[in-house]
Amino acid sequence: LDIVGFIHRKADGRAHGPGEIATFVAELVRGGVADYQASAWLMAVKLNGLSEAETVELTRAMAASGRRINWKVRGAPPTVDKHSTGGEGDKVTLVLVPMLAAAGLRVPTIAGRALGFTGGTIDKLESIPGFRTALSEPAFRRVVQMAGGAIVAQSAHVAPADGILYGLRDATATVESIPLITASIVSKKAAEGVEHIVYDVKTGSGAFMPEPAQAEKLARSLVSVSRGLGIDARALVTNMYEPLGFAAGNSVEVAEAAAILRGEAEGRSGAVLDLSLELGAELMAMSGVERNRAAAKRRLSETVASGRAFDQFEQMVKAQGGSTGWMKKPWSLLRPHRTHLVKAVRSGWLRWKAAWKFGEALRLLGAGRARRTDRILPEAGALVRAGDGDRVTKGDVLIEFHYGDSSRLRQALDTLDGAFEISSGPLKPKPLVLKRIR
Amino acid sequence: LDIVGFIHRKADGRAHGPGEIATFVAELVRGGVADYQASAWLMAVKLNGLSEAETVELTRAMAASGRRINWKVRGAPPTVDKHSTGGEGDKVTLVLVPMLAAAGLRVPTIAGRALGFTGGTIDKLESIPGFRTALSEPAFRRVVQMAGGAIVAQSAHVAPADGILYGLRDATATVESIPLITASIVSKKAAEGVEHIVYDVKTGSGAFMPEPAQAEKLARSLVSVSRGLGIDARALVTNMYEPLGFAAGNSVEVAEAAAILRGEAEGRSGAVLDLSLELGAELMAMSGVERNRAAAKRRLSETVASGRAFDQFEQMVKAQGGSTGWMKKPWSLLRPHRTHLVKAVRSGWLRWKAAWKFGEALRLLGAGRARRTDRILPEAGALVRAGDGDRVTKGDVLIEFHYGDSSRLRQALDTLDGAFEISSGPLKPKPLVLKRIR
Repeated sequence: LDIVGFIHRKADGRAHGPGEIATFVAELVRGGVADYQASAWLMAVKLNGLSEAETVELTRAMAASGRRINWKVRGAPPTVDKHSTGGEGDKVTLVLVPMLAAAGLRVPTIAGRALGFTGGTIDKLESIPGFRTALSEPAFRRVVQMAGGAIVAQSAHVAPADGILYGLRDATATVESIPLITASIVSKKAAEGVEHIVYDVKTGSGAFMPEPAQAEKLARSLVSVSRGLGIDARALVTNMYEPLGFAAGNSVEVAEAAAILRGEAEGRSGAVLDLSLELGAELMAMSGVERNRAAAKRRLSETVASGRAFDQFEQMVKAQGGSTGWMKKPWSLLRPHRTHLVKAVRSGWLRWKAAWKFGEALRLLGAGRARRTDRILPEAGALVRAGDGDRVTKGDVLIEFHYGDSSRLRQALDTLDGAFEISSGPLKPKPLVLKRIR
Repeated sequence: LDIVGFIHRKADGRAHGPGEIATFVAELVRGGVADYQASAWLMAVKLNGLSEAETVELTRAMAASGRRINWKVRGAPPTVDKHSTGGEGDKVTLVLVPMLAAAGLRVPTIAGRALGFTGGTIDKLESIPGFRTALSEPAFRRVVQMAGGAIVAQSAHVAPADGILYGLRDATATVESIPLITASIVSKKAAEGVEHIVYDVKTGSGAFMPEPAQAEKLARSLVSVSRGLGIDARALVTNMYEPLGFAAGNSVEVAEAAAILRGEAEGRSGAVLDLSLELGAELMAMSGVERNRAAAKRRLSETVASGRAFDQFEQMVKAQGGSTGWMKKPWSLLRPHRTHLVKAVRSGWLRWKAAWKFGEALRLLGAGRARRTDRILPEAGALVRAGDGDRVTKGDVLIEFHYGDSSRLRQALDTLDGAFEISSGPLKPKPLVLKRIR
């Protein structure tokens, strides 16, 4: 590999020849490319882009850089997965995996930890006492076999090229690049051997991609690159103009998910169930287990109504070593905490206008991470009692913060300023699903 | 310094705030910025540019990163310098420094080694037996005091930030950037304490900047950034569509320069003298020692006619430890070598059309460097007997190559193919000076 010529090509805005990117990735993992050369190339890619063919080659090479899992067994049910770009209160994975497993699909999910806008399904699950997220491949297979689904943390052996490149991107302001985001996400999914995937690309003031046009671009890129790697894929662009559902944090979100699976979705939790049904229905239709989305939604709803989804969740938690004593009364999972109520200062209609400030406030409380080394406080979080367009009366509780430390609360409340406003006239909230990409 | 935010700013195409770049450079030299972060920033600069104010700040910070020389002494003559972007056969420094010294100016010149398109004045001088180019600052000052001028190699203590950044640029395809080239050149000149400088920016098929418009852009950038640092500056954009003068290589060029200083400029050497007078006249006029360029040229010509420029050269060579026995018969400097003649295959008018191939051939012979670690062969070189527009007859010698090793010669001749052609009609050669920037 003529690495300087390789960087030059992209810096000049030209396309790489076939095989060039694959050689670059292989050399990178082998240690034959200096970090400063890789980061220069990443910046050239951020500014000059990659074609779809280049992105497919990068993604395939990244997937091939480490261990790959193969789930295909003759006669086994389809293997499906859902991936979200992350947002406040997004506990859909916790709800959807048991529902899909109860509907007869295999759902081996590899999830991430919270970082910036990235949700931390793994952090959420770790608020269940005893729950193990670092499973060996045989243990992962056993849990999937037993409970239909499992949710485990990514191992360093999966797509190590992504680990190297992501580390550099994080330190060199090259995170925001649709081809690089696509390659990072899809390479891991490809290495995990998933057959059908639905991407939940969040947009709005609480999302990593606040502009719907950009979110749609990312969604299209995820779908086409996945297909380029032989993975059946669809994407929904969904609402992150306000927190999703009732709870936002770690143990609070697990509690909300368990409550939903117990058939106790009410108020703002309804949106979580609705979105889970939307995403699940796409997977059911894609994998051919239901002919259309309407039938798929009915079948998925039935897994909740019958209690089978909840049973599947309980089985999965048990199989991964987690305690289940709390599950009959989901909110008993919460550790002792202090509570602060944010109330409406006047009457009117609530409008979430800068939802990222709520996310930032949650991070400051200890529910998320700004840096990889930040420690999560499982009990830190919030219950969101009013959503976009809700009629509120002066004195109504809008948000109930759970916290442990007053100085953190003060910082969080300062940051929250401007996250929402109360307008004097009614307003129309944005839909839950803004765009479907098939 | 928030280094990720700093890179982000430039990657997003925004301007850096005052002081930001200076902090970055200081941190870089201190070791507080990772190489991969610096290279990502360099790529962002290459693709998004720097404003003039940003380039001035970068240049000033790079100059301030190491040792600085101060030549200002009350009543001392002005300190002047010339810098060329490099080209084939460019021995102007060797001719001009003694002429300016003989005209009463101080010319403390810090020169570079050959690398790619960059000329190697230091390599040329080292073909004089005994000549020392690595002088301490006191020794440098003594030679300038004694001989009016000195030509020494850059010390690692001058602008160390440039050393770090240049090393990264070379390995990350970020060399071609007008603000970065400007900062690299001007920072060293500023650290060297020069008061008046003229830049010789080469353009044409044998130059680093083959497009005249790009060369002019670089010339304007060099002048305005120099002025931003308080250095009086002008620039000429000059002809590198064909090799400059008669000789190209190392010892051959020193011999040609000595011959010119002895008043023996004839044939193609005339262009070297003409360009030296053009550049020197700008410096004489800038520093106020002559009212206009015509008078300055007369005075500089007189230093050659009177033999004073030659004496000054001899004095400088002696003061820097070089042997002078060869100087009465300049061509006796050449070591034993083999000769290969390239002859006209038909009659017509010569046209240099890809002069870079001649430069490449010289490098392959051993006269230049592709990599920093390549060894120079002092005797390798060529005498160019025909220039752009010259009438040639079949069998005329066009180039006389000096070489030591037949396999290198074969490679060089292969590379030379297409460097020039013989056309059937007359053609007008390009002027020596294409543009003056004052």
